[in-house]
Amino acid sequence: MDPASISALTFDVFGTVVDWRSSIIREGQAFGNSRKLSVDWAKFADAWRGLYQPAMEEVRSGRRPWVRLDDLHRESLVRLLRDFGVAGLSPAEIDDLNRAWHRLDPWPDAVTGLTRLKRRYVLATLSNGNIALMVNMAKRAGLPWDTILGAEVARAYKPTPEAYLRSAEALGLRPEQCLMVAAHPGDLAAAARCGLRTAYVPRPLEHGPGRSADEPDTAQPFDVVAGDFVELAERLEC
Amino acid sequence: MDPASISALTFDVFGTVVDWRSSIIREGQAFGNSRKLSVDWAKFADAWRGLYQPAMEEVRSGRRPWVRLDDLHRESLVRLLRDFGVAGLSPAEIDDLNRAWHRLDPWPDAVTGLTRLKRRYVLATLSNGNIALMVNMAKRAGLPWDTILGAEVARAYKPTPEAYLRSAEALGLRPEQCLMVAAHPGDLAAAARCGLRTAYVPRPLEHGPGRSADEPDTAQPFDVVAGDFVELAERLEC
Repeated sequence: MDPASISALTFDVFGTVVDWRSSIIREGQAFGNSRKLSVDWAKFADAWRGLYQPAMEEVRSGRRPWVRLDDLHRESLVRLLRDFGVAGLSPAEIDDLNRAWHRLDPWPDAVTGLTRLKRRYVLATLSNGNIALMVNMAKRAGLPWDTILGAEVARAYKPTPEAYLRSAEALGLRPEQCLMVAAHPGDLAAAARCGLRTAYVPRPLEHGPGRSADEPDTAQPFDVVAGDFVELAERLEC
Repeated sequence: MDPASISALTFDVFGTVVDWRSSIIREGQAFGNSRKLSVDWAKFADAWRGLYQPAMEEVRSGRRPWVRLDDLHRESLVRLLRDFGVAGLSPAEIDDLNRAWHRLDPWPDAVTGLTRLKRRYVLATLSNGNIALMVNMAKRAGLPWDTILGAEVARAYKPTPEAYLRSAEALGLRPEQCLMVAAHPGDLAAAARCGLRTAYVPRPLEHGPGRSADEPDTAQPFDVVAGDFVELAERLEC
């Protein structure tokens, strides 16, 4: 793939740009310690993320009208607090814990790599996270996005084709002028079916040490593979 | 107004952040010189901008479904080329001239002021310009937006209330946590009716030297008035 044929990079965020799992564990521990809660926050983080796809599927399937991810996260949180035996939190406390998703830390290479990539390309999020979540996360972590796109702007959750197609259209670009960057082969396969180019950046620690991450079928083609965002910048001649 | 009560600044862009008129004249002259066209580009720029409100009104009134500003600009351009006696341009040449709106120059204080304001606040566009237009303009001019909001995301042209309300909502904020920044009293009055706070930054040269700009009724209240974006940063303690 010729780097000059690309105008914009569109990014998956949870897992690809930020380490959601260790950040949610850290946020949960701080929240729990200040309230003397006895919770296994690693299990809690995994369970919270486990409800992510089923919650979005209600919207993708049309069984529910559009709901932004902050609200889906909060519904899942209320259910998990009950399952984990946590009672007596105020609505404001639940909101605060829910906003842990706005305070995720980037992988160590992310800000350096994005800053280099931004010199040459438009950088847009193409995440299922809603606009406020993405803006607050970027502000805290220093992620230099040119703009926030993805599910809320497209009113469609990935991997629905409209999530990718409407994001390219919003940038005034043809799909093949966009390079989708993700750690998840399924996200990249869906983007490729819409005509976007693909960059696979594996994040083997996404699900925690010693646990396997999403791995591609050996037959799945990618336009670019890079070990991290700094290597991605090198491959794209930034 | 307490600067700590505000979380985000939302900006009008054409006229407030960028000097559309002298930029369009410059772009038109360069375009015309290379094609030996004899056009008064100052008149052309004023006429093009003159078709802006009537074109959006077709959408605001519901007579037309949603159309993004790039497309409205292009329809106006085709009509004006005919009126100004310019014939024989290819569709690609017309597209190129239409994208002059993506290449507007900021007022001299804009980048410095925005860079200071960004340290403390979320900075979002709340313009009638579409996403691609705003992204390309920001990339070229160095405008450090946190995200692009406004008409295309809200699917409503200012001064329709939804343009303001959906932008605040997308940021996860109440209207009164947003400060609308504009050189146009009418834009600020509409924002205030939706509950946003208002900052008036007059741009007396918007319509060219010696020509009057929009001026507020003396009775119209603003939360902040500043001579430029650097003064705005000072008033907001950035």
